[in-house]
Amino acid sequence: MSRELYFMQEAIKIGIEGMNNNAGGPFGCVIVQGDTIVGKGCNKVISTNDPTAHAEVSAIRDACKNLNTFQLNDCEVYTSCEPCPMCLGAIYWARPKKIYYANNRQDAANIGFDDSLIYDEINTSLENRKIPISCIGREDALKMFDEWSKKQDKTEY
Amino acid sequence: MSRELYFMQEAIKIGIEGMNNNAGGPFGCVIVQGDTIVGKGCNKVISTNDPTAHAEVSAIRDACKNLNTFQLNDCEVYTSCEPCPMCLGAIYWARPKKIYYANNRQDAANIGFDDSLIYDEINTSLENRKIPISCIGREDALKMFDEWSKKQDKTEY
Repeated sequence: MSRELYFMQEAIKIGIEGMNNNAGGPFGCVIVQGDTIVGKGCNKVISTNDPTAHAEVSAIRDACKNLNTFQLNDCEVYTSCEPCPMCLGAIYWARPKKIYYANNRQDAANIGFDDSLIYDEINTSLENRKIPISCIGREDALKMFDEWSKKQDKTEY
Repeated sequence: MSRELYFMQEAIKIGIEGMNNNAGGPFGCVIVQGDTIVGKGCNKVISTNDPTAHAEVSAIRDACKNLNTFQLNDCEVYTSCEPCPMCLGAIYWARPKKIYYANNRQDAANIGFDDSLIYDEINTSLENRKIPISCIGREDALKMFDEWSKKQDKTEY
């Protein structure tokens, strides 16, 4: 068995455990650095009442905590399903070097986990979104951005 | 002052506090149900080493914890900046009824917070992504999905 398949099977195992424990849906993820699993997570939306607790977000948070960093540059992500837009965003902010997935988004839709609405909405102009979105208070918020630009002791990221 | 502007200014205040405390970047968010703030959060990427700890994700997690639910159907999201793809995804999973934002994505890019790469990548075919992404182990992962479909005691969401 290739190392990649080994790590994917670990991700799937974690997903199965989470599903059987009623943590959430059938999704697992591991983060690998070199040949070591440095973070792992399953979907915990139901058990933690946290809609952001997808497997990838959980695994990224775990890996970052374990490695004491908010960047996973030299890591690989093994996720048992193609990431939804939220998780893809989380992965890009964490900046790993490679992503492996097993089930694809159509497989997920086939069992009732359909993220095509979110993919579509990201490409829809703000005026035509299904959840209405409006701009308000930009003048005040720009002052905060201006303060950030001038801030001397900031950590850029 | 309108109630909408009031709540947006609360979101901005939380962003300023977080920035001044070096929690993270200049971003704040509140979740409102009726006329009550039920969740709030600032960007905490730096202070918590969590790349997913954007203001919106933090506020959604806080509101869901406080309301003991993973759905924010009757709530409004007030975020001091237009959501990045990760946060937009998180908002859509939480399903609030309306989103207000202040600074827009171009304002954010102007001070170094550029999420256009992620927006672009979501629309790029898997073969052409900047972070390579490959399918592996789908056969095993499909078995897990099949188990989910047959599972009797699951909570659908």
